[in-house]
Amino acid sequence: MRMVDIIEKKRDGKELSKEEIRFFVNGYTEGAIPDYQAASFLMAVYFQDMTERERTDLTMAMAESGDTIDLSEIEGIKVDKHSTGGVGDKVTLCLSPMVAACGVPVAKMSGRGLGHTGGTIDKLESIPGFQVELSSDRFIRQVNDIKLAIVSQSGNLAPADKKIYALRDVTGTVPSIPLIASSIMSKKIASGADAIVLDVKVGEGAFMKTVEEAEELAHAMVAIGNRAGRKTIAILSDMSQPLGYAVGNALEVKEAIDVLKGRGPKDVTDLCLTIGSYMVLLGGKAQTIEEARTKLKKALDSGEALEVFKRFVAAQGGDPSFVDDPSLLPQAHYKVEVQAEKSGFVKKIIADEIGLAAMLLGAGRETKDSEIDLSVGIVLNKKVGDYAEKGDSLATVHTNKKNIEEIIEKISSNIILSEEKGEVPSLIKEIIAE
Amino acid sequence: MRMVDIIEKKRDGKELSKEEIRFFVNGYTEGAIPDYQAASFLMAVYFQDMTERERTDLTMAMAESGDTIDLSEIEGIKVDKHSTGGVGDKVTLCLSPMVAACGVPVAKMSGRGLGHTGGTIDKLESIPGFQVELSSDRFIRQVNDIKLAIVSQSGNLAPADKKIYALRDVTGTVPSIPLIASSIMSKKIASGADAIVLDVKVGEGAFMKTVEEAEELAHAMVAIGNRAGRKTIAILSDMSQPLGYAVGNALEVKEAIDVLKGRGPKDVTDLCLTIGSYMVLLGGKAQTIEEARTKLKKALDSGEALEVFKRFVAAQGGDPSFVDDPSLLPQAHYKVEVQAEKSGFVKKIIADEIGLAAMLLGAGRETKDSEIDLSVGIVLNKKVGDYAEKGDSLATVHTNKKNIEEIIEKISSNIILSEEKGEVPSLIKEIIAE
Repeated sequence: MRMVDIIEKKRDGKELSKEEIRFFVNGYTEGAIPDYQAASFLMAVYFQDMTERERTDLTMAMAESGDTIDLSEIEGIKVDKHSTGGVGDKVTLCLSPMVAACGVPVAKMSGRGLGHTGGTIDKLESIPGFQVELSSDRFIRQVNDIKLAIVSQSGNLAPADKKIYALRDVTGTVPSIPLIASSIMSKKIASGADAIVLDVKVGEGAFMKTVEEAEELAHAMVAIGNRAGRKTIAILSDMSQPLGYAVGNALEVKEAIDVLKGRGPKDVTDLCLTIGSYMVLLGGKAQTIEEARTKLKKALDSGEALEVFKRFVAAQGGDPSFVDDPSLLPQAHYKVEVQAEKSGFVKKIIADEIGLAAMLLGAGRETKDSEIDLSVGIVLNKKVGDYAEKGDSLATVHTNKKNIEEIIEKISSNIILSEEKGEVPSLIKEIIAE
Repeated sequence: MRMVDIIEKKRDGKELSKEEIRFFVNGYTEGAIPDYQAASFLMAVYFQDMTERERTDLTMAMAESGDTIDLSEIEGIKVDKHSTGGVGDKVTLCLSPMVAACGVPVAKMSGRGLGHTGGTIDKLESIPGFQVELSSDRFIRQVNDIKLAIVSQSGNLAPADKKIYALRDVTGTVPSIPLIASSIMSKKIASGADAIVLDVKVGEGAFMKTVEEAEELAHAMVAIGNRAGRKTIAILSDMSQPLGYAVGNALEVKEAIDVLKGRGPKDVTDLCLTIGSYMVLLGGKAQTIEEARTKLKKALDSGEALEVFKRFVAAQGGDPSFVDDPSLLPQAHYKVEVQAEKSGFVKKIIADEIGLAAMLLGAGRETKDSEIDLSVGIVLNKKVGDYAEKGDSLATVHTNKKNIEEIIEKISSNIILSEEKGEVPSLIKEIIAE
């Protein structure tokens, strides 16, 4: 087999065999196939797409290119969750204990990543003493004991995906449905999930700007998951404004605790209940989606979800007393209010610009080597549809830097006021199960 | 400027600016842009094409990426000729002295290359004593003195094209009209041509299999040439069967001399007269195409073209006595006849298979490092439309190898006999001047 023939076959719009796809994935991972052949191949895929069968073969080849996590010693159906990423997305932090409280084992590997704020792992590190690395044995024991563990992704999970992703980033081949879908699904499958619930964000603050694009990606991932024998469901959720109020690492941990205490923002809570319902259903702990939702609400109301969270923090070496006293979390030195320059209804909050402002404060990484400041970020005081009087605070900026006029201006100009109360975007757009 | 932005712009079907194209060509030539970015860019060009303006900018950027030959000290309009390559194409050898005899200066750089036989330079090396390398001064002086010099291509002519071509070969991006056209034209322009006549081969033995493909390439090259200020004309000529009878280096030199003696194969002679007419016209030595053709015929009939050829051989150190005694050219040890297995009309001669047979005899290079045998090759004894009795010789194989049953079989099975006299393909398909 020669890579140039595989490139030409895809270039000419033909379907590749499983063997040809494996030849590419394994050859590229091992270094036998050079970057330049992988690059022209990926561009050919960008233009010619892949069938569901090819996408599944690509996903499995990448999933099996390195370590695969064996979760068979954990009792029950292991349901994983993945979000395509948005501003203020702290869902994993509050959702996981809710689902675990319903008896579904949550054995989660999570990442750091680049972007507006840190990833789930960075956010958890704002908890004093919390350990994000556990041995495989301890990880499995903890999930069997308390139904929940969240650890940093291991070093050699889907190395093919890592190498291909890095190449796509510099060769103009990022926005390709088969490549995005297989990248996400390969990591979930390598992480040992039996079933997967996907939160596909849609809107100006997300990678997928329109519902049509998000639907296409969701269908692609659901098809791969189901063909690969992992029952998969996707939820399309709104990312036209940030999720919840808090954007920043410790600030988001605090907001997640509010959700677990039953007093969190309505959108975050609703999203946790929706995603959680499908996780509980796929995890076999409810017969219907309504029953699953009722169980989750009970876990919140009874305080059981909060208890699971405390047990989880303690099990991973953290001190849970911050749950009752959030001032024990990292605190920024200064708070600055962003005031409304006129009265009006909040019409839009441009999510990615708010995220960018948070990154400029130090809450997120610009490059892989950037240091992040866990204490800083932005807390919105108004969301789309709310009314603000001139001079009201639209947002509170938590910062350790003093000269942040430009950042304040960025936030101010991206919370858009209008005389008329516009439409408030619906949170859940669609459920895609096939 | 960032290469990834240029890739994405082309990927999305937008027109690149001259500056963006130069950024790519210069950056890639210098090594500042890596192979993998060039590879995905070339695949994006394959799918999204380039406008005539972009193609011209790409051509000029490649032409100017290395040495450019200054022919301004040569008097007159320098007209170059290029063939896209076919089996038995010895046209440069006989055409050049014909045109020079009409007063048009021919200052030609030619290549070796891979393929069925050697390139023009290899063919010339079968002449005893002939030197293919001349200093720049001597090259210019010779053209001013006798109107003709043919030398081996210099080392650093259009290095961008060399590097891009090598990459295309292994990344599935060879068959792209903007890339093929700019590759050919950049070398012609770097070689200092004022005007260019292109012989675009079409048929089973050529890269362009159909008239439509050949027309597209011809239009692309003519447009580039004219936009770049080099008057350019393309001739589409038949390559469904080999050109002339001889396929092999010394064998083709002998056939070229036959043309100059006025007793060459009709197709080679006709093609030389057609290409030559446009060269004489563009060179300003005739007012009409008919006048140009008459001059060329006179140059043949009077023996003046043959005289120019002898002077040219002598000027480059060769011994012209082989012109009167072709046995002084390299001779193969054995001659083997390929006999007709039945009686019939020759319906087809599959040109590329005959070429492949010649290469297997040793007449051409399979890889850059292959040695070629100047003496060997194939001389057809019948062409399409001719009648052969069972047992007649269809071709004579000149070989230095003894066990060539497979090669004989290849030749035999690719000269196809039929009971009916089929259509004889016309030699000149079309003239494209804009």
